[in-house]
Amino acid sequence: DSPLVIAGKTFKSRLMTGTGKYRSIEEMQQSVIASGCEIVTVAVRRVQTNAPGHEGLAQALDWDKIWMLPNTAGCKTAEEAIRVARLGREMAKLLGQEDNNFIKLEVIPDAKYLLPDPIGTLQAAEQLVKEGFAVLPYINADPMLAKHLEDVGCATVMPLAAPIGSGQGLKTTANIQIIIENSKIPVVVDAGIGAPSQAAEAMEMGADALLINSAIALAVNSSAMAYAMNLAAIAGRMAYLAGRMPIKDYAIASSPLTGTVN
Amino acid sequence: DSPLVIAGKTFKSRLMTGTGKYRSIEEMQQSVIASGCEIVTVAVRRVQTNAPGHEGLAQALDWDKIWMLPNTAGCKTAEEAIRVARLGREMAKLLGQEDNNFIKLEVIPDAKYLLPDPIGTLQAAEQLVKEGFAVLPYINADPMLAKHLEDVGCATVMPLAAPIGSGQGLKTTANIQIIIENSKIPVVVDAGIGAPSQAAEAMEMGADALLINSAIALAVNSSAMAYAMNLAAIAGRMAYLAGRMPIKDYAIASSPLTGTVN
Amino acid sequence: DSPLVIAGKTFKSRLMTGTGKYRSIEEMQQSVIASGCEIVTVAVRRVQTNAPGHEGLAQALDWDKIWMLPNTAGCKTAEEAIRVARLGREMAKLLGQEDNNFIKLEVIPDAKYLLPDPIGTLQAAEQLVKEGFAVLPYINADPMLAKHLEDVGCATVMPLAAPIGSGQGLKTTANIQIIIENSKIPVVVDAGIGAPSQAAEAMEMGADALLINSAIALAVNSSAMAYAMNLAAIAGRMAYLAGRMPIKDYAIASSPLTGTVN
Amino acid sequence: DSPLVIAGKTFKSRLMTGTGKYRSIEEMQQSVIASGCEIVTVAVRRVQTNAPGHEGLAQALDWDKIWMLPNTAGCKTAEEAIRVARLGREMAKLLGQEDNNFIKLEVIPDAKYLLPDPIGTLQAAEQLVKEGFAVLPYINADPMLAKHLEDVGCATVMPLAAPIGSGQGLKTTANIQIIIENSKIPVVVDAGIGAPSQAAEAMEMGADALLINSAIALAVNSSAMAYAMNLAAIAGRMAYLAGRMPIKDYAIASSPLTGTVN
Repeated sequence: DSPLVIAGKTFKSRLMTGTGKYRSIEEMQQSVIASGCEIVTVAVRRVQTNAPGHEGLAQALDWDKIWMLPNTAGCKTAEEAIRVARLGREMAKLLGQEDNNFIKLEVIPDAKYLLPDPIGTLQAAEQLVKEGFAVLPYINADPMLAKHLEDVGCATVMPLAAPIGSGQGLKTTANIQIIIENSKIPVVVDAGIGAPSQAAEAMEMGADALLINSAIALAVNSSAMAYAMNLAAIAGRMAYLAGRMPIKDYAIASSPLTGTVN
Repeated sequence: DSPLVIAGKTFKSRLMTGTGKYRSIEEMQQSVIASGCEIVTVAVRRVQTNAPGHEGLAQALDWDKIWMLPNTAGCKTAEEAIRVARLGREMAKLLGQEDNNFIKLEVIPDAKYLLPDPIGTLQAAEQLVKEGFAVLPYINADPMLAKHLEDVGCATVMPLAAPIGSGQGLKTTANIQIIIENSKIPVVVDAGIGAPSQAAEAMEMGADALLINSAIALAVNSSAMAYAMNLAAIAGRMAYLAGRMPIKDYAIASSPLTGTVN
Repeated sequence: DSPLVIAGKTFKSRLMTGTGKYRSIEEMQQSVIASGCEIVTVAVRRVQTNAPGHEGLAQALDWDKIWMLPNTAGCKTAEEAIRVARLGREMAKLLGQEDNNFIKLEVIPDAKYLLPDPIGTLQAAEQLVKEGFAVLPYINADPMLAKHLEDVGCATVMPLAAPIGSGQGLKTTANIQIIIENSKIPVVVDAGIGAPSQAAEAMEMGADALLINSAIALAVNSSAMAYAMNLAAIAGRMAYLAGRMPIKDYAIASSPLTGTVN
Repeated sequence: DSPLVIAGKTFKSRLMTGTGKYRSIEEMQQSVIASGCEIVTVAVRRVQTNAPGHEGLAQALDWDKIWMLPNTAGCKTAEEAIRVARLGREMAKLLGQEDNNFIKLEVIPDAKYLLPDPIGTLQAAEQLVKEGFAVLPYINADPMLAKHLEDVGCATVMPLAAPIGSGQGLKTTANIQIIIENSKIPVVVDAGIGAPSQAAEAMEMGADALLINSAIALAVNSSAMAYAMNLAAIAGRMAYLAGRMPIKDYAIASSPLTGTVN
């Protein structure tokens, strides 16, 4: 397998995680390790405001090993997201990642479903690309929007499987499949994955990577679930490369019976 | 995690495989190793008749490490299956497994779907249990039949996910779920699994083990797929034990926003 | 379309209903009419014991127009079911259907899922056929069991879509499809249908008829739902006969564009 | 039930159809009648260029009874769609519908999946609303885009179930459900419906109306399928209003057994 390359940077792991919703910093630290991830997304606003559960969070990970993916969670408009993206870049620099220009772009006006705004996301993406960011936009699974984002120079697209934190699994497979078929940039399935089977399924479809947070953080045993997701992402990727058996309408015996024993 | 125990014998791996449909003996050997399995099922009739692809097959595995699960594939009636089961026990003995009394019971009158006969299976199971076999019956996912088989003393039940060799995945989840909830003996999901995501899903539901053959043997790269299935079975089991997050109707943000940065 | 023929008797409607779970006798009467059904199943035991909600129930329908289908609900064994079937025949006679030999056979040992026992059902069916009954057995969707029941002379098979009264919809489509393909007697999908879309889907698959009770009786507006089920069963049957369009992987424009207007 | 109201105009039928893909004008005419529809969409470009199968098509329907819904099929950009919409209005006037300002807006740059462009669609919608059109935009099932279109004054939103002409059924239910919950304008499920069961399901979810063309035109017997869709749409709507039974995890017997007969 060739490694995952995003904006020229190479990663071995195809599973990204987050830092939110854990019951303790220790649990988060252990889960990040168990997940085998090399990219962790961090909500810039929550860190900068020391939101509950976010005190010292940015400092709690080993940024020599983990690549920070600042995100614009909590931004309702393109303007807000652009401002927060710039703060994110500063945050990454302060934590020692001088050349980190990654931003996970979230423009989310809606509080109930946390679904991203296609118009505001495209506007912000265009501006942030101009400012030199490697933009990873969180989007509804709309193949035409994905194409626009690729055209304006985004580093990946991150279509959602289901609403953030819902754990509903792959509810948008038909559209994600079309995005994968047509995308020249990595496709990272983000949000909604609730179980390793769903992580594996997304990878079997040919997704380049996954971002999973809630399903790990909210499991009864987070670090065990993190490790399960780690294995599942690898299993799904291997299966994609190994070439799965064709699906048959009927049964096929293990081999023709050429004789019988009595 | 506690180990899998079948008829008093303990296994670490929860993935069982087979020997049929491979393109070569070497590929089969490598796949068995990559799968990490400890139990391999072998069609007694095919081995004894040296069916094409089965010459030397029984000798091709290291039976010091692998527990043989002889199966009665090709038997249309209870009587045939009982006879072949006895031959299977001899075969295991000849290959050095003196105390191996396992038999995977298949009674399959239908050639198109290879679906098992509930009546013949129950009859054969009753007789074989009396003869001291540890009976692992292959069945349609019928919870009441599973209960009968448990009541007559079977060592496991092996409900099918979909027709043998079809790779259709989990088509009988509702019934398998009920079987799992009610069974006091191990539930081994057998037949129809086509991809690691499906293997993981069955384990997440609480299945005790899986038997996968076609999806490995017919993959373009069999040993890679075997390894993927190995990981997926572990991932699914770990997730089952780790306790997955609840499924939500709506989105849940990673944490409440308690302030904003401007 | 040719009519539905069961045991030599012809019916125009392909939707059967029941009498249980209604909030009042009037609601039941209106719903039976709105459903357009010609066959109504009645629980022999409940009627004979005047169970709550069943007082006068048998008398509440116009048995000149409706064909009674006595059922053996509440029977745990073949023996019980056979006894109750005989009582059912008497009941039909008393209500004026002298030649009615129909019996909906239910042998249900399990109280939680109300799943039928394949062994007891087959035993009772064999006996009842010998006694001249037209036997309509309620079964799990097991194609091999369906074959056995056809072989012993049953008038139909009635595979379940999902547990009785669950409203979960078609959870056993793969097996029902195989039963339909192979059955020479009518296949009546029974239990689990919760919405008209599911009724239509079963008919589109080629089912010969449906039996729906809870989804009608437990709707907020039972008679409106009964009429919706009536239409859906007809729609599904018509679609089956009309021959549906093939499913395509990609989009197909409404017609090729041979020119453009500017 | 209250009638369907779009841009102040009232309709009894909730099923819209089209004119494309039929094998003959006669078949189209019969199917339109059998469908019971009151709105038929017509591709302006195809009619104006007399594309094969479209000669005389506009004249073949009784526009005293059928409300014309001109569409902008074949338009790749907002500009094209705006021009064609204006032509559509002229076409409706010429056919006697002086006050018809409806336009089904399609902006589709992609030839393989025929998926609509969210950006171009929103731009064109804004302009057309300003010009006094009642705009019915065809969109991917993106709740945020649907909100934008409602905000700029569209008359409906028409989210797709699956790619046009694919007959794949409801592949975007999770998002369509959210659109329905949040929309103050009618939600018309458009494209991808292949069978009456799917038509019923969309209506059961609370969709206000459906647009179905290929599944009717490409059925072996188009007019029979048109009638089946007609019934299914009514059945689905009735079920939505009737209030379906809750879904249960377990079985519920038709009534408690309070006695037994022996």
